[in-house]
Amino acid sequence: MGEFKKNSTITPIEESMSQWYSDVCLKAELMDYSRTKGFIIYRPYGFAIWENIKNWLDKEFKKTGIQNVYMPSLIPESLFNLEKEHVEGFAPECAIVTTGGNKELDEKLIIRPTSETLFCDHFKNVLNSYRDLPLLYNQWCNVVRWEKTTRPFLRGKEFLWQEGHTVHETEKEAREETLKMLEIYRSMGENLFAFPFVCGRKTEKEKFAGAVETYTIEALMPDGQALQSGTSHYFGQGFCEKFGVKFLGKDNKIEYPYQTSFGVSTRLIGSIIMMHGDDNGLVLPPAIAPIQVVIVTVKDEKVPELKDYARGLKAKLEEMGVRVKYDETDRTPGWKYAEYEMKGVPVRVSVGPRDRENGVLEVVYRYNGEKVSIPEEEFINSIHDIFKTIHQGMYNKAQKYLNEHIYEVHTYDELKDVLSNGRGYAKMMWDGTREVEDKIKEEFNASSRCMPFDQTPFGDVDPVSGRKAKYVCLFARSY
Amino acid sequence: MGEFKKNSTITPIEESMSQWYSDVCLKAELMDYSRTKGFIIYRPYGFAIWENIKNWLDKEFKKTGIQNVYMPSLIPESLFNLEKEHVEGFAPECAIVTTGGNKELDEKLIIRPTSETLFCDHFKNVLNSYRDLPLLYNQWCNVVRWEKTTRPFLRGKEFLWQEGHTVHETEKEAREETLKMLEIYRSMGENLFAFPFVCGRKTEKEKFAGAVETYTIEALMPDGQALQSGTSHYFGQGFCEKFGVKFLGKDNKIEYPYQTSFGVSTRLIGSIIMMHGDDNGLVLPPAIAPIQVVIVTVKDEKVPELKDYARGLKAKLEEMGVRVKYDETDRTPGWKYAEYEMKGVPVRVSVGPRDRENGVLEVVYRYNGEKVSIPEEEFINSIHDIFKTIHQGMYNKAQKYLNEHIYEVHTYDELKDVLSNGRGYAKMMWDGTREVEDKIKEEFNASSRCMPFDQTPFGDVDPVSGRKAKYVCLFARSY
Repeated sequence: MGEFKKNSTITPIEESMSQWYSDVCLKAELMDYSRTKGFIIYRPYGFAIWENIKNWLDKEFKKTGIQNVYMPSLIPESLFNLEKEHVEGFAPECAIVTTGGNKELDEKLIIRPTSETLFCDHFKNVLNSYRDLPLLYNQWCNVVRWEKTTRPFLRGKEFLWQEGHTVHETEKEAREETLKMLEIYRSMGENLFAFPFVCGRKTEKEKFAGAVETYTIEALMPDGQALQSGTSHYFGQGFCEKFGVKFLGKDNKIEYPYQTSFGVSTRLIGSIIMMHGDDNGLVLPPAIAPIQVVIVTVKDEKVPELKDYARGLKAKLEEMGVRVKYDETDRTPGWKYAEYEMKGVPVRVSVGPRDRENGVLEVVYRYNGEKVSIPEEEFINSIHDIFKTIHQGMYNKAQKYLNEHIYEVHTYDELKDVLSNGRGYAKMMWDGTREVEDKIKEEFNASSRCMPFDQTPFGDVDPVSGRKAKYVCLFARSY
Repeated sequence: MGEFKKNSTITPIEESMSQWYSDVCLKAELMDYSRTKGFIIYRPYGFAIWENIKNWLDKEFKKTGIQNVYMPSLIPESLFNLEKEHVEGFAPECAIVTTGGNKELDEKLIIRPTSETLFCDHFKNVLNSYRDLPLLYNQWCNVVRWEKTTRPFLRGKEFLWQEGHTVHETEKEAREETLKMLEIYRSMGENLFAFPFVCGRKTEKEKFAGAVETYTIEALMPDGQALQSGTSHYFGQGFCEKFGVKFLGKDNKIEYPYQTSFGVSTRLIGSIIMMHGDDNGLVLPPAIAPIQVVIVTVKDEKVPELKDYARGLKAKLEEMGVRVKYDETDRTPGWKYAEYEMKGVPVRVSVGPRDRENGVLEVVYRYNGEKVSIPEEEFINSIHDIFKTIHQGMYNKAQKYLNEHIYEVHTYDELKDVLSNGRGYAKMMWDGTREVEDKIKEEFNASSRCMPFDQTPFGDVDPVSGRKAKYVCLFARSY
């Protein structure tokens, strides 16, 4: 069966973005469905993207002094229930272990949907004096949340993520940490994914269960819907008070410290697929592409020396630090072109007998389809510049799209037009009330709202309530 | 409380190896107990050791073409039950999820104790023809096994590991893969942990549930007990037949492929602690030490320039690729010496006012307590040679210990003497019967048995049964 799969086409984006998305996930071999309903399998190609994201983020975290730890995957119900808002936020999504070693358990165990409670309980044990602060911890792990409807990478019963948890001596330091981590996430969009995230603060209603403030990064997808892609929370002292996390201060008094948490998940893979993909499949920015250059030889069955030439080319590119694949299988060049186009490999090099004689490579860029002839030596020496050009081209396109799809709305009708027609973000002066938030959600199904850092007002009145406006806020439909 | 912890001493090894081990785990801050009974917390220092192991192994795996994937953490009971021996082997240790999203589940889900069943089910979906082979997959993940008695790193209800799963066209290739992976594990002992593993084949009784052959790496601990530290299995076609994993061969016939799996876990941390530790705590080989060099300044409150000097020294060592820490806290030098001794940091450098003037460093090696004075420049330039010397010294000591604790036994009394007194391995000519295996286990509580690759016989008769001997076999008590 599989040998024929590649020839089948994927659904065009215009026809159904949702079907296109599922097709790409499967046909680019990013994932597979599993026998565990609602759980996916991360196939090598999809997992390699996650590894590239993870390696980059892990380095950035460590530069700031963050250390990795690992907490139990199961949380006793009594511990989980200590923080009221937190429990209420997560209880409906919990998977619960009731049996272990053929015996019913004395106390039910919850598979971690997030680990604040375990971290707090541990902080209580290891934190003694100001000398121990700050505690800057992170863990890479799987979490389970019992979602009803699932979509590969975007929403699943299980996903992979990092959850950072830090404890600080002062409020100022903790607030700075919250924003420092948000900045790392923003920079990840710019430098790794080749698209800009919209960054801002969440509304009271939308913030994390137990947080004082939640900051978010969102990506605007080609269908005009926002995708929440990561969050950074400032907790104040709330969790520490509930869990009894205290320390001896410099002034010799016992105090509660200030806490943060922050996380991004494999959902990021979903944002990359949708942001850059096209009707031929995935389009990956070089920084996270598992294969940055693919080499295909043409007519190598007639000119076997071509294979040696291609292997040499591969070795030279690897010396330049490039992730390169030479597909030596006996499949046709046409099959290979389609395959690596589907997989979004940024640069394809094809070499036929004549190219080899001339020492010139035929190079095709995935993101814009451009085809150029480049002398071999020049290609090898400038490969990292080529990657930069591709990255910048992809970023500029995404930035342009975002700029063109944030609409300042001054009236209810303008708001309605933007949201009902899925045009993108409606940027509105908001009175800050839950009432307006709820109304916009109900009437236009716009569940994303985010208060950008730039709060320069462009009006005095909230067009929905007619009351005095307090904040600039972005509203959009969302995933 | 914590400020005083360091001054308390740990139990001497002579008094109780078991209590010494628990003390070191806690006081070197490798782990902490958690509120989830039987589950531990990997603290930054302990987790960093695991990261160093993981990074090394991951590179070695990838050099051979292995790719990482991620499978669901939960396995439907029906899928888990497909392979009979496998189920019987693991069923008593399973943790079971019965509730998800406030609803009782239609089918119970088992938290993975290992993932053969999920891998096989996936292989069935993605394997089509010989062109897809070999499939060389690995995953890094947590697994849960409901152990009754637990000890940090050695045996827990949850641990971290890698599980490799590969599928091959031929038996020969699969058998080679099994041994190739065992060789990587052996080399990890030699090059990373600075001790030799005993490698060999497990007996019929002791092999993995569902395997045709199981190979093992074992470490002989200072108390004469063996610690199984990793396994590599050849599965033949058994799992593939049960799960319907087939492929179109080069001869155009549908065939079952040949399979392997292999894994090591955070148990390795336990073997390192016990192998090298002493009454002052942990002793780490430089290759996996999270901190390779620690700098302590003496009298820096009187000579503040010392701090700048130490920072400069740190920067120079970092440029040499060394993991170095300069502890600038206001704790006393004595506290710091004890702290980093406990943490097993291979090299300690202390700098006082006079040392700085003379440009000479006072250097202490953790593994043998040797104290030397070395001019700064020489120290920096030869730091990697110093690490090599330390590594070799640690390895030689461990190799000598192993050599001296493998006893060729020719009579039942000799066997009894070695095993009852916990002297180490009894190397015995074995008739290959389960009867003898069971008897040795029952009478001497010797649950480790391993048939080394070198099968040069040193006798004809099994001293336990009096029957004709078939194999050279190593017996020992074990963890």
